[in-house]
Amino acid sequence: MTKVGLIGLGYWGPNLARVLNQTTRCEFTACCDLDPQRLKKTLRQYPGLKGFESVEDLLSSDIDAVVVATPISTHFDVARRALHSGKHVFVEKPLADSSPRARELTEIAQARDRRLMTGHTFVYSPPVVKVKELIDSGALGDLQYLSFSRVNLGLYRKDVDVVWDLAVHDISILLYWLDESPISAGSFGRSCVQSFKRDVAYLWFQFPGGTIASCEVSWLSPQKMRRTCVVGSKRMVVYDDTDPSEKIKIYDRGVIVHQPENFGEFQLTYRTGDMVAPNLANTEPLLIEIEHFLDCIATGETPRTDGRFGAKVVSAIEMAEKFDWQREDQLVAA
Amino acid sequence: MTKVGLIGLGYWGPNLARVLNQTTRCEFTACCDLDPQRLKKTLRQYPGLKGFESVEDLLSSDIDAVVVATPISTHFDVARRALHSGKHVFVEKPLADSSPRARELTEIAQARDRRLMTGHTFVYSPPVVKVKELIDSGALGDLQYLSFSRVNLGLYRKDVDVVWDLAVHDISILLYWLDESPISAGSFGRSCVQSFKRDVAYLWFQFPGGTIASCEVSWLSPQKMRRTCVVGSKRMVVYDDTDPSEKIKIYDRGVIVHQPENFGEFQLTYRTGDMVAPNLANTEPLLIEIEHFLDCIATGETPRTDGRFGAKVVSAIEMAEKFDWQREDQLVAA
Amino acid sequence: MTKVGLIGLGYWGPNLARVLNQTTRCEFTACCDLDPQRLKKTLRQYPGLKGFESVEDLLSSDIDAVVVATPISTHFDVARRALHSGKHVFVEKPLADSSPRARELTEIAQARDRRLMTGHTFVYSPPVVKVKELIDSGALGDLQYLSFSRVNLGLYRKDVDVVWDLAVHDISILLYWLDESPISAGSFGRSCVQSFKRDVAYLWFQFPGGTIASCEVSWLSPQKMRRTCVVGSKRMVVYDDTDPSEKIKIYDRGVIVHQPENFGEFQLTYRTGDMVAPNLANTEPLLIEIEHFLDCIATGETPRTDGRFGAKVVSAIEMAEKFDWQREDQLVAA
Amino acid sequence: MTKVGLIGLGYWGPNLARVLNQTTRCEFTACCDLDPQRLKKTLRQYPGLKGFESVEDLLSSDIDAVVVATPISTHFDVARRALHSGKHVFVEKPLADSSPRARELTEIAQARDRRLMTGHTFVYSPPVVKVKELIDSGALGDLQYLSFSRVNLGLYRKDVDVVWDLAVHDISILLYWLDESPISAGSFGRSCVQSFKRDVAYLWFQFPGGTIASCEVSWLSPQKMRRTCVVGSKRMVVYDDTDPSEKIKIYDRGVIVHQPENFGEFQLTYRTGDMVAPNLANTEPLLIEIEHFLDCIATGETPRTDGRFGAKVVSAIEMAEKFDWQREDQLVAA
Repeated sequence: MTKVGLIGLGYWGPNLARVLNQTTRCEFTACCDLDPQRLKKTLRQYPGLKGFESVEDLLSSDIDAVVVATPISTHFDVARRALHSGKHVFVEKPLADSSPRARELTEIAQARDRRLMTGHTFVYSPPVVKVKELIDSGALGDLQYLSFSRVNLGLYRKDVDVVWDLAVHDISILLYWLDESPISAGSFGRSCVQSFKRDVAYLWFQFPGGTIASCEVSWLSPQKMRRTCVVGSKRMVVYDDTDPSEKIKIYDRGVIVHQPENFGEFQLTYRTGDMVAPNLANTEPLLIEIEHFLDCIATGETPRTDGRFGAKVVSAIEMAEKFDWQREDQLVAA
Repeated sequence: MTKVGLIGLGYWGPNLARVLNQTTRCEFTACCDLDPQRLKKTLRQYPGLKGFESVEDLLSSDIDAVVVATPISTHFDVARRALHSGKHVFVEKPLADSSPRARELTEIAQARDRRLMTGHTFVYSPPVVKVKELIDSGALGDLQYLSFSRVNLGLYRKDVDVVWDLAVHDISILLYWLDESPISAGSFGRSCVQSFKRDVAYLWFQFPGGTIASCEVSWLSPQKMRRTCVVGSKRMVVYDDTDPSEKIKIYDRGVIVHQPENFGEFQLTYRTGDMVAPNLANTEPLLIEIEHFLDCIATGETPRTDGRFGAKVVSAIEMAEKFDWQREDQLVAA
Repeated sequence: MTKVGLIGLGYWGPNLARVLNQTTRCEFTACCDLDPQRLKKTLRQYPGLKGFESVEDLLSSDIDAVVVATPISTHFDVARRALHSGKHVFVEKPLADSSPRARELTEIAQARDRRLMTGHTFVYSPPVVKVKELIDSGALGDLQYLSFSRVNLGLYRKDVDVVWDLAVHDISILLYWLDESPISAGSFGRSCVQSFKRDVAYLWFQFPGGTIASCEVSWLSPQKMRRTCVVGSKRMVVYDDTDPSEKIKIYDRGVIVHQPENFGEFQLTYRTGDMVAPNLANTEPLLIEIEHFLDCIATGETPRTDGRFGAKVVSAIEMAEKFDWQREDQLVAA
Repeated sequence: MTKVGLIGLGYWGPNLARVLNQTTRCEFTACCDLDPQRLKKTLRQYPGLKGFESVEDLLSSDIDAVVVATPISTHFDVARRALHSGKHVFVEKPLADSSPRARELTEIAQARDRRLMTGHTFVYSPPVVKVKELIDSGALGDLQYLSFSRVNLGLYRKDVDVVWDLAVHDISILLYWLDESPISAGSFGRSCVQSFKRDVAYLWFQFPGGTIASCEVSWLSPQKMRRTCVVGSKRMVVYDDTDPSEKIKIYDRGVIVHQPENFGEFQLTYRTGDMVAPNLANTEPLLIEIEHFLDCIATGETPRTDGRFGAKVVSAIEMAEKFDWQREDQLVAA
């Protein structure tokens, strides 16, 4: 059975530890953190683990795969060393802090024939998978536009801004659903509380097929929203992740264009049918995701959110940030 | 008592007729529409009215003021003629189809000393006035950003796109609250159902004081939203116009930045206090608005949404449309 | 075409006048109120009407049917005189202030072969009709219980208590859906604001088939609720009349009892399938209702809420009030 | 420091174990379950614990207090033995399966000067405590009525019906808020899925001061509700425990009775002021409750939900069940 080590026991690491301990598809044997206190606490909770204070030591130990939950700026370095030492690697999102680095990891993994997977958990959550099925089956028709809102009060991160923290989720969902990369992108935002670190931002994307998408993210909002609206030519979907029981609502609604006779005007009518909230499994996405990683190691399959996918997400963020609408040289002022 | 005539009995006109009939502050004496059927129907409902099939005839009749509810492209022409014939003029929003024309109307009104008012109804609605009071009193602190969503399925208009139909409401609210005009603006959208007429659009604005605003409008959305979030440094407000009983929620929430000691890191803590939904009057905004127009005629006061205000709204739309982020020459492609 | 007169122009009468004026299936020719002011106001609004200050005069005029919207205590007297003078009669709910009187009206109508209909509007509303279809088709399985909540702040009536004002709606819906009368009933409540007039009450009913129902009504509640839960063995329905877009939600949910093997315990599992909110017509129930009355006059058909139905509703109220759980002689004290 | 043992590791026990492990105010030293599997699992999770397969052995060990989370029918026996062996005792709700037994436990505890506490967790939850403060301060005025709804699909219990499972929560909240016991009570319900075990029930209570209360509980409902409405003469409160952010809403609403002049009619007007959702602490009620038990042991104080309180809750359930409105000898049939 695959032996797995966990690197990084800070904010998110403990959740991964819990899931690695819970699944029966691997042996969770080792963990690592530079902070002895965190390490000690984890070892107390999982007495069977070996603890390491250095990544090098953990990588030298008897493990087949690592799960990386360290600060984003270290993803590249830790993942590269792990791949070079022959491990399969799961990296928390985003894969790296730049797209060249993300692509380099992908190439190393390919060269060494190791599985490299990015932890885009939402791509494994039942509502997101359900919408993917609806899109792929043609039930929604042509995708006209998508609108994402992911806002709440806090939690401010120290290392990255709100785009790299929150928008990365929406972009991963968007790229998974559309299966294509944007041809153009832009952004707009403000650093309200701290200098040089946006806590509210608006992003927008245009895709080759014509679909457009907008994404609003904020750490500075009084109500929590996790709302995505997917508008297709046949059906429309609202995915509200804060709804405890009806996360997905499928609306049989649309506008019908009637061709004009004899040079007359176009006529529009509105179609309003039933709304269906499909029943969704209650399984924890994090568990599904980790077991997908373990399955891919076992079978040699490519993970759904492999290195290539992770690199595309990073590219899309960079594309949106490159065109910062407020930058003077890009601005068309009044 | 002021004698008022109504021009245009199409989609919105009948609502104005009802309110003109209801108020005791004017004599509603005449109406006008090019379509004899509409005219007949209105005269049946208000037997005391005189009916005219031409604007010229109505303007020659014994009235002091006109209310204009004709298609947007005719606003300028009808309002100008009315002003020139010495009437006070109320024009449905937007004031005109271009800012030079809007400003020209303003100048004529000033030269002829007539009241010119734009029908930005929301500026007279109790929740919008309440938020204005909160902003002006300093209760919200510095305004950091505002986020508007005004989406639903339909009603597609034949003459204008979704920006000129729906975003004009949000922009009027925004300019009323902030009391300043944007220094830059942009937009992004798509014509999904018809060619060359956007049915979904995103607009954004930057103001001299640093405040930014975003505005999402759509005729192609499965759920109706009328949601505005106002984030201040002291308090935050959510204004949801679809909520039948609690349209305004004031959150005593924010982020506190603690100055670091000795080159240490900034520390942030989150403040969460009570939420208050103030009681609001139930008065119909359209009635308040029309009575404001009549009061301004009686007293000579300047209407809150006078010609100048209406022209600023048109300018802000134009500024956002001028910078269309998808236009090729402005695009920073991948 | 049927000529119709309206008796009673107080709180509800104007709504009936509007609908009688709107439909093309009758000639709305006369109206009557003891109060000359109200009469005058109605005649101004509908100039073609004849106005009467006495019921006798209206009944002597050239009409085929009357619509009665007078205070409840006068329903019996007015309807009886109208039937005796050969008119078809529509009486606002409840049919009369006692079940013997309600039954007497029914018998007169039968003897004179006139249509007698009670104005239980909800029985004609699209969501209530939809649930009826679900029940009759067997889609819900056996009805296990129903729970009604109809509460809000005000409007206190002068002539009747909250049971006769609000619960009468729920009871009409209940009897329509179940198509049977309760075998027992009881109630419990309090007169909080005025003496001897309940402003909050709980009613409950037991039906021959085993189904039970509970009904909560209040004029003294901070939030408006119009919520009915229908629990069947196969499916469950929530009907929320305050929801602007999804008044009916059908849940494919239930409990499955697994027969025990070899004297073991019963095992239960829970079934959770999709939720469907069917699209419902937007037609005004009051218009549907009045047109049903007019159709029944034209065809001789029995109205869905005929005199017999109206009498059953009054009987059910009386049964619930007869067993007032707080009356001392019925009380099983601690 | 108080040494605590936990008896019963079934459905609820693991939550108590977690909290006993979390608090720093006691030493969690021992646990006990008849099922060796459960015991083993708990010992693996908390390696420092001593495990016992018999209550007797645990009671003989070196502990000062026990927490009892066994099936309800065994509460009396286990708690009695623990008190007789000199331990302080915390018993999960309800205290016992009959009021004489509950009172006997109370007497033993008094005689042996031990703390006896019932695990009515809701009495320690921040929203319930907040409403208690509002009531006691007079902010709500006279309490007119209270309406409780606690419904959802499942979880059917094997040992008790829905009243002993769910209504016990509402009754504990009710008695805590009102600080008095009902003078009369009744109930009504149905056993839909299993024979002789109600899965839906309505209870009602009358209190010496005039206040009435209604309580709806169900294991067979499509939507989860945890809603309590408290109507006072000055203010009204809605407490919705499913709302993640605004569990308590205080409405400044009511009806004002104007005294009639000269034998005229009473006039009523409606008062609608602001709504306030007070900020509430996020502390886990179970932790607050267990720490309250430990504090009472340390100080000798009487717990808020002591044996006497727990016995009153059981008495109120019995009073409501004694008057089962459907029992034939009590029935006033049609």
